[in-house]
Amino acid sequence: MKELKDHVVVITYGPSSEASVTASPVSQQTPSLFAYSVTPSASRFSSRRASVHVIGLVLRFITMVLCFVSALSLAVNVQRPSKRHLTQNSSSFASYPELLYCFGVAVIGFVYTSLQTFKGVCDITHRGVLISEPLSDYISFIFDQVICYLLVSSSSVAIAWIQHINEDAIKTLRNNSIVSVSMSFSAFLVLTLSGLLSGYKLCKRFMW
Amino acid sequence: MKELKDHVVVITYGPSSEASVTASPVSQQTPSLFAYSVTPSASRFSSRRASVHVIGLVLRFITMVLCFVSALSLAVNVQRPSKRHLTQNSSSFASYPELLYCFGVAVIGFVYTSLQTFKGVCDITHRGVLISEPLSDYISFIFDQVICYLLVSSSSVAIAWIQHINEDAIKTLRNNSIVSVSMSFSAFLVLTLSGLLSGYKLCKRFMW
Repeated sequence: MKELKDHVVVITYGPSSEASVTASPVSQQTPSLFAYSVTPSASRFSSRRASVHVIGLVLRFITMVLCFVSALSLAVNVQRPSKRHLTQNSSSFASYPELLYCFGVAVIGFVYTSLQTFKGVCDITHRGVLISEPLSDYISFIFDQVICYLLVSSSSVAIAWIQHINEDAIKTLRNNSIVSVSMSFSAFLVLTLSGLLSGYKLCKRFMW
Repeated sequence: MKELKDHVVVITYGPSSEASVTASPVSQQTPSLFAYSVTPSASRFSSRRASVHVIGLVLRFITMVLCFVSALSLAVNVQRPSKRHLTQNSSSFASYPELLYCFGVAVIGFVYTSLQTFKGVCDITHRGVLISEPLSDYISFIFDQVICYLLVSSSSVAIAWIQHINEDAIKTLRNNSIVSVSMSFSAFLVLTLSGLLSGYKLCKRFMW
């Protein structure tokens, strides 16, 4: 038997599902198996994983609210067209492609984040109920990135439109667009954090 | 001594830097230390790390070329203003904020990716020469994401501008912008892949 180094960590595993790791400082010839034994905790949520889950849930909920306000601030304009300036320039966002694009992305963001929030809440009680954990990690990571790109793209286009518009006839629409763009840009920032988190979760799973 | 399970993996480590992992199927009472021993390879570049490095380098080089062509196709227009239509609408991209933004982002992308390519080539011969490895992984990951967002934002704004412009006076500028936007959008797609790769490298370092 080769002269052993200072420490021997013995990991025993086999057909029975229970696995155990024991580390023992060895001074004699053969390793004596005592000292602290680290058994992987059986509780469903380790504290680290739970906190990552909750943070992700909160970030998605905030994004959901921001996307909702962004879409609402554009849509609100359609019901009350300003009577005094009912000129050819309709004051509905639908007649401007840039605002339509911004509205569409806000709605997509709202639908996606509300589904994620719903799944996140379900996961707290029984994990992996709707979609399996690995699949949900992949979907979250990919869609977080895609919706981030859509949000930054639609905000930029809407900002360019706002800079071009200075007619009084659609002043209300312009103000509403400013509110909508700032909401969707903040949603982009929050979703970027959420994207980093889902990337981290994916890596954790990928690395195991 | 507790009756041992089917497999025992013994990791021996100590003051001497050399560490070794040996796994042995155990039928008798005490673990016999034989079977395959995995010693961390001493060669500077493990084959997996080298391929990740080379792929990253190639992706950055492609992005550099695409950003260069994108900026060039806009700049080329400035030297040869079309004499026939020297009307108030100057045919230089500089007079349109959207194209100026697109040009600026293409130049930023070009400078960033050429620095990264230069560092990547230096790293092949002597690793971590300019910036330490961990710092360079963090910088790569953050800047890849930021420049991705800038590229998708500037492409969207330029696309919105192209849709609005249909005056003949600036037809050449419009065509050049179409070339520029398609180059910068492809640069965005390639840099997204590179961003995934640097995220993977960062996770590998973060997880060790």
